[in-house]
Amino acid sequence: MAKIKVGILGATGNVGQRFIQVLNNHPWFEISALAASERSAGKAYADVADWKVGTEIPDSVCDMEVVQIDPKNIDADIVFSALPADLALTVEPAFAKEGFVVASNASAFRMQEDIPLVIPEVNPEHLGLIDVQKKNRKWDGCIITNPNCSTIMMSVTLKPLLQFGIQNINVATMQAISGAGYNGIYAMSIYDNVVPYIGGEEEKIETETLKIFGSFDGKIVKDADFKVSASCNRVPVIDGHTEAVWADLKSKPKPEAVREAFLKFDPGLSNLPTEPKHPIIVRDEKDRPQPRLDRDMGKGMSVSVGRIREGIRYVALGHNTIRGAAGASVLNAELMHKKGYL
Amino acid sequence: MAKIKVGILGATGNVGQRFIQVLNNHPWFEISALAASERSAGKAYADVADWKVGTEIPDSVCDMEVVQIDPKNIDADIVFSALPADLALTVEPAFAKEGFVVASNASAFRMQEDIPLVIPEVNPEHLGLIDVQKKNRKWDGCIITNPNCSTIMMSVTLKPLLQFGIQNINVATMQAISGAGYNGIYAMSIYDNVVPYIGGEEEKIETETLKIFGSFDGKIVKDADFKVSASCNRVPVIDGHTEAVWADLKSKPKPEAVREAFLKFDPGLSNLPTEPKHPIIVRDEKDRPQPRLDRDMGKGMSVSVGRIREGIRYVALGHNTIRGAAGASVLNAELMHKKGYL
Amino acid sequence: MAKIKVGILGATGNVGQRFIQVLNNHPWFEISALAASERSAGKAYADVADWKVGTEIPDSVCDMEVVQIDPKNIDADIVFSALPADLALTVEPAFAKEGFVVASNASAFRMQEDIPLVIPEVNPEHLGLIDVQKKNRKWDGCIITNPNCSTIMMSVTLKPLLQFGIQNINVATMQAISGAGYNGIYAMSIYDNVVPYIGGEEEKIETETLKIFGSFDGKIVKDADFKVSASCNRVPVIDGHTEAVWADLKSKPKPEAVREAFLKFDPGLSNLPTEPKHPIIVRDEKDRPQPRLDRDMGKGMSVSVGRIREGIRYVALGHNTIRGAAGASVLNAELMHKKGYL
Amino acid sequence: MAKIKVGILGATGNVGQRFIQVLNNHPWFEISALAASERSAGKAYADVADWKVGTEIPDSVCDMEVVQIDPKNIDADIVFSALPADLALTVEPAFAKEGFVVASNASAFRMQEDIPLVIPEVNPEHLGLIDVQKKNRKWDGCIITNPNCSTIMMSVTLKPLLQFGIQNINVATMQAISGAGYNGIYAMSIYDNVVPYIGGEEEKIETETLKIFGSFDGKIVKDADFKVSASCNRVPVIDGHTEAVWADLKSKPKPEAVREAFLKFDPGLSNLPTEPKHPIIVRDEKDRPQPRLDRDMGKGMSVSVGRIREGIRYVALGHNTIRGAAGASVLNAELMHKKGYL
Repeated sequence: MAKIKVGILGATGNVGQRFIQVLNNHPWFEISALAASERSAGKAYADVADWKVGTEIPDSVCDMEVVQIDPKNIDADIVFSALPADLALTVEPAFAKEGFVVASNASAFRMQEDIPLVIPEVNPEHLGLIDVQKKNRKWDGCIITNPNCSTIMMSVTLKPLLQFGIQNINVATMQAISGAGYNGIYAMSIYDNVVPYIGGEEEKIETETLKIFGSFDGKIVKDADFKVSASCNRVPVIDGHTEAVWADLKSKPKPEAVREAFLKFDPGLSNLPTEPKHPIIVRDEKDRPQPRLDRDMGKGMSVSVGRIREGIRYVALGHNTIRGAAGASVLNAELMHKKGYL
Repeated sequence: MAKIKVGILGATGNVGQRFIQVLNNHPWFEISALAASERSAGKAYADVADWKVGTEIPDSVCDMEVVQIDPKNIDADIVFSALPADLALTVEPAFAKEGFVVASNASAFRMQEDIPLVIPEVNPEHLGLIDVQKKNRKWDGCIITNPNCSTIMMSVTLKPLLQFGIQNINVATMQAISGAGYNGIYAMSIYDNVVPYIGGEEEKIETETLKIFGSFDGKIVKDADFKVSASCNRVPVIDGHTEAVWADLKSKPKPEAVREAFLKFDPGLSNLPTEPKHPIIVRDEKDRPQPRLDRDMGKGMSVSVGRIREGIRYVALGHNTIRGAAGASVLNAELMHKKGYL
Repeated sequence: MAKIKVGILGATGNVGQRFIQVLNNHPWFEISALAASERSAGKAYADVADWKVGTEIPDSVCDMEVVQIDPKNIDADIVFSALPADLALTVEPAFAKEGFVVASNASAFRMQEDIPLVIPEVNPEHLGLIDVQKKNRKWDGCIITNPNCSTIMMSVTLKPLLQFGIQNINVATMQAISGAGYNGIYAMSIYDNVVPYIGGEEEKIETETLKIFGSFDGKIVKDADFKVSASCNRVPVIDGHTEAVWADLKSKPKPEAVREAFLKFDPGLSNLPTEPKHPIIVRDEKDRPQPRLDRDMGKGMSVSVGRIREGIRYVALGHNTIRGAAGASVLNAELMHKKGYL
Repeated sequence: MAKIKVGILGATGNVGQRFIQVLNNHPWFEISALAASERSAGKAYADVADWKVGTEIPDSVCDMEVVQIDPKNIDADIVFSALPADLALTVEPAFAKEGFVVASNASAFRMQEDIPLVIPEVNPEHLGLIDVQKKNRKWDGCIITNPNCSTIMMSVTLKPLLQFGIQNINVATMQAISGAGYNGIYAMSIYDNVVPYIGGEEEKIETETLKIFGSFDGKIVKDADFKVSASCNRVPVIDGHTEAVWADLKSKPKPEAVREAFLKFDPGLSNLPTEPKHPIIVRDEKDRPQPRLDRDMGKGMSVSVGRIREGIRYVALGHNTIRGAAGASVLNAELMHKKGYL
C-alpha cells in the first residue's frame, strides 16, 4: 500500500525536528515536503536545520530541499503544523482552503468553535466537528488541533477520573525549557533558577481542558462544568513537563481506586502506530515520575503518574515536544485516517 | 556591653556554616564554641569544615578549636542546633537540662506540646510556652524551635492573610538542593530533573503550619482550624525555595487587597538585628520572584512574593538555609533576648 | 546458530545498566546471568536495579533473578565486568581461573604486563597477549580489559595521527558526572561548578595511552615513546566526555591533512555488531562536537571530533558509559569472537 | 575630600550592573551618570535595568535618570565603558576627545599601538602609553583598556612565573555563561552541555597576553616573545572562569617553587581600594579552585590557583564579570588616580 504523503510546516524548529523524528519509518505516512521560512527555502534540510534532537538526522530528509510555506509548493495529503501562533493564523486556513488536512500543534485555532481540539485517548468523538467546520468555512480541507503540551499531560490523566466526578482541579506545573523553543529562554534566566511564569500558559490549561472534556452534540462542543486553576513554572530541565495535580472528585475515591482507574485505562483506539502501549504508566516508587527517567517512556508518548495520595493529589509527567506536541499531532492524523477522514 | 556567648551544635555542616555566616559580626552575640562530631573535635574549624558558603570563612572562627557535642565542653548562654533530627532527640534535652537555651533548627521537638515553634514575625506570643516547658520538664534551660524551611516561607506570607479568614491552603513547592544538606542528593538524581518527593516534607508543612497559627491560651497551643495540603518537589536550584500557593480565603478579597496586605505587613518587632527591613517583599514584575535573583534579599531573610492572582494564588520565595534555617533560629534567639528570656 | 551466553558482573550499577542496554537484542550474545552484591541476590533484576538509563528496562532481564558474584552461580562463556577496581582485583582472576573469558571495564588489571588493554579500532593485535597470559597464569579463561573512558576517546582519535609521528600530547578533559557512577558526586559539589580534579584519572590517561599505542612483539608490549600530559575536570554534564587536545606531531601536518586522516580512518574490523559505522565523525561546524548533541552518535559508539586547528589542536568527544565503558568491553568480546578466542 | 565623579557607559547590561556593584560605596569615586541606549534614556535606572546581580540594587542609583550615551550629557571625570565592541569603536574616542578618561572593558581599542592594555598587578608601567596616545591623537582625554576576562585570570598568574622564563603556554578554558552577557546564550545550547567554542576568545588570549607582558620603552610596547595557544570552552556555570594552564618554563622549577612564587607575589600597588588583599590565592586542597566556591574571593577580585603539578600545570580561576571586567576597569582607574593621571 502506498504511504500517505505528509508535509511539515515549520520543519526546521524544535517541534518541526520532533515531527521528523516521530514520522521517521512511520508505517502509514511518508514525508514528502519540508516547509520553512524564506531564509531556508531552496537549501538541503540538513544544511538549514540546526538539528538538535540528539539522534542522527534521518537519511530520508537529509538532502530534501526545503520549500517555502505555500500550498502550491507542497505535494501532500496532510500537513503537520509546527508554526508559531501568529503565522499559523493565516497559513493554516490557506492550506485548509486548498484541500489539505492541517494537523496543527499551534494555538491559533484551538479555541475556535468549529475546530476540533483533540487528544485521541480523551475525546476522539470531537472529530465530528470537522464536518461542521467544512460546511461552515466551505473548505475542501480542514484544521484539527491538539492542545498545549501541559494541557495534554493532565487531560490524559483526567480521562479515567471522569467516573469519579471532577469538581475542581488545581495544577502546578514544572515545565521544561524546550517548551519555549530552542531560542526561547536565555541560559542566564533559568540556570540555578525557577521562573514562575510562562506567558499565556495558565489560560491555555484552564480553557483548553474544559473544551476537551466538553460534550459534543453533533454541532457544538459545550464546555465541561468543572474548574481548572493553574500555576505554571519553568524549571531547569531540558525535556519533560512535571505537574502536581489536586483533583477534587465528587465521589471521594480512595487513592487506591484512583490508581486502579489509571491502570485500567484503555482508550480503545485499536493500536494506532504512534499510540503507546500504555497511555498512562503508574509508578509506585515513592519518588517517581521524574522527567529525566520517565519522559521517553512509550517512545515519549506515555504519560507517567505517581504519588497518588489523599486529596486526590498526584504527579503527572510527559514529554512536552513528543506527547505534548509533534506526537500529539501525528496521533490525531492517525485517528483521522482510521476514522476515514483522510 | 559584653556580648552574649553562643555555641553552635553541628557547626561543620551546611546549616552550621550558615549559622556562622549569620552570626558573623552580630551586635549581640559572639560565637564562643563550635561543636561537631568526634571526628572533627580537637581540630581547627577551618581544617575540618569543608567550607562551601562561597564567601570567605570568617577570621574569628578559622582557628577556633572544634569541641565534641557535650554540655560540659561549651561555655555559652545559648546554643544553636544544626543537628540532624535523630541526634537532636537526645542532645538538645541534655543541653536544656544543663541550663542552656537551645535554639534549634532540628525537627525533633517541633511538634511536642510544650515546645514553642516560633517565627518571630508570625507567632511571637508562643514564647510563653517556655515557662510551661520549664515547669513541665524541670529544666534550667529550654528548647525553642523554628519550623521547617518550606513552612517558614509560606507562614510568613499567610500571617497578613489571616484578616481575610484562611480556609484552605494548597501549596506546591520547588525546593533547592541545599535543603538536603551538602551530601543529601546525588548529582545524577537531580540534574536535568525534578524529584517530586521529599521525605517527610509534606507532613511537616501540613502540621507545623497549624501549630504556628494555633492560639496559645497561656498553657497550650490549639491548632489553627484551616487545612494545608502540600506537594513537595526538588528542583535543580542551589538555594531558595519557591512555592506556588492557593489560599482559599473566607472574605474573598481581590488580588489587589492581598497585595496591599503583604505590603503593609509590619510584625512590630522593633528592629531585631537579623530582622530584614522588609519581611515580605512584593514583586510586581510578571515573572518574579525567582530564586537566583531574590533569595538573598534582606541578607537572605526577606520572603519575596509575586504573581498575586485571583484564587487567591501567589508565589512565595525565600532562602532556605538562611530565612528557612540558621537565620530563623538566630531571629528566635534575638526575640528571646528582647523579651527577657536570656 | 545458538547465541553465546554472557554474564554481567555488577549488573545493577551505572555501567552494568549500560551493559544491558548495549547487549539488548545483540546478534551474537544473550544475557544468561546478572550478578551483583549479596544484597540484591535472589531478587528480580527490576526490583533491585534502580534503572536510570532513561529507556525502558528490557523485558528479557526484567524478571531475571540476580545471583551473587561467584563463578559457580553463572552459566556463561563470557562475563562482562562492571565491578569497582578493588572488587575486580579478586573476582576477575577467580572467574578467569574457572575458564571464563572476562571482558573487564575495571582498572584493576589494565596495566599488568600480560593483560591486554585493547580498543579494537586501535590495537587489536594486542589480543595476542591472551596466549601469553594463559600460559603465565595457568588459567583456562582469561582477562581482557578496555581503557578508562577518557583514554578511549582520545586514543581512537590518535590512531589516524600515528602517520604524522606523535611527539607530545596535552589534553584537558571536561568529563560528565555519570563517569563517577550514580552515587559518585553530590549535587552540591558540581551544580553551577567545575571540579578540576578526578582521582587517578590523569595518571590513567597518561599511562594507559602509552600501553595501547605500545608495540607488541608476541611476548610483551613496549610502551609508545611519546608523552601525554592531562588535566582532568568534572563539569555539569550528564553523559559525554569532551576533550581539548594538543597533539605535537613530527611531520607538522596542516589541519586539513589531519581532518582528512580522521575522515579516512578505517579500522578494518569487518563490521562487528557494536562497531559504529563511523568510528570517528568529523564535525565541520565551528562549535561542535558538543556532549548533548553528539554523545549518542553511532548509538553512543562513535567518537566525534571538531575544531581542528593549527597546533595541532582539536576537540574530541564520546559517550563515556557506552563508547568509554560498556560498549568498549562488548566490542572487545566481539573482536575476540571474530578472532577465534571464544 | 570631594569624590571623583564617574559615569558608566552601557550601565544597564551585565557588566554595567557589575560596575555599579563595584563602585557602590567606593572611597574615591561616586557615580554621577548612567548612560545607556536611547530606549532607556530619560527613565529611572531601576525601571530600565533588568537588575540581575542577585543583591539589592544600590539606593544611590535606583532613581537616577539614565541618559543617552553622549559626552554632553555626562558630568564626570572618568567614564567606565561596558559597551559592546562595535559601539565602543566610535563612542570611546568621542569621549576621549572631549577630555574624558575612558576606562574601557571593550575590546575595540585593546590592541591599538598607543592604547595601554593594563592589569595593575602585571604591567602598571604601560600607563606611560597614555602620554604617547594624547600626543598622537591630540585628545584632551584618553582611553585605557583592560584585557579580556580569560586573559586577565591567566596573566595575573603568569606574572610571578616570569622569573622562571616563560617559553610556551597552553591553556584550556572553561568559561561561565555570564561572560556572553545576559542574552548571549540560549538555555537549550548550554544546559547539560559544553560548547567548545567562543567567538574571538582564543585570538584574544593569544594576542593580548603578549602585549600585556610586552616591554615598554617609553614609546611603544614590544610583544613578549613567548607563545600562547588556547582552547576556549563554555560550560554550564553562572560566573567564574576556570583555566587549565600548561606553562613551559625555561628554568624548570619544581611545583613547590611555583607555589612559593604564587604565594609571595606582591604587586606593590599600595592598597588601591578595589585591590584584593591577595591578588593570588593558593589553594592546597586537591580539588580546588572551583568556580562556585572561589569566584567571590577578595570580593571577586582575587585569582585562585591550585593543582600545581609537574609540567608546570596548574588551574587558575577568577570572577569573569568582576576581576575579568568591571573590577578590572575600576582598578585601572584607581591606578591612574594614584599615579596622577586623573
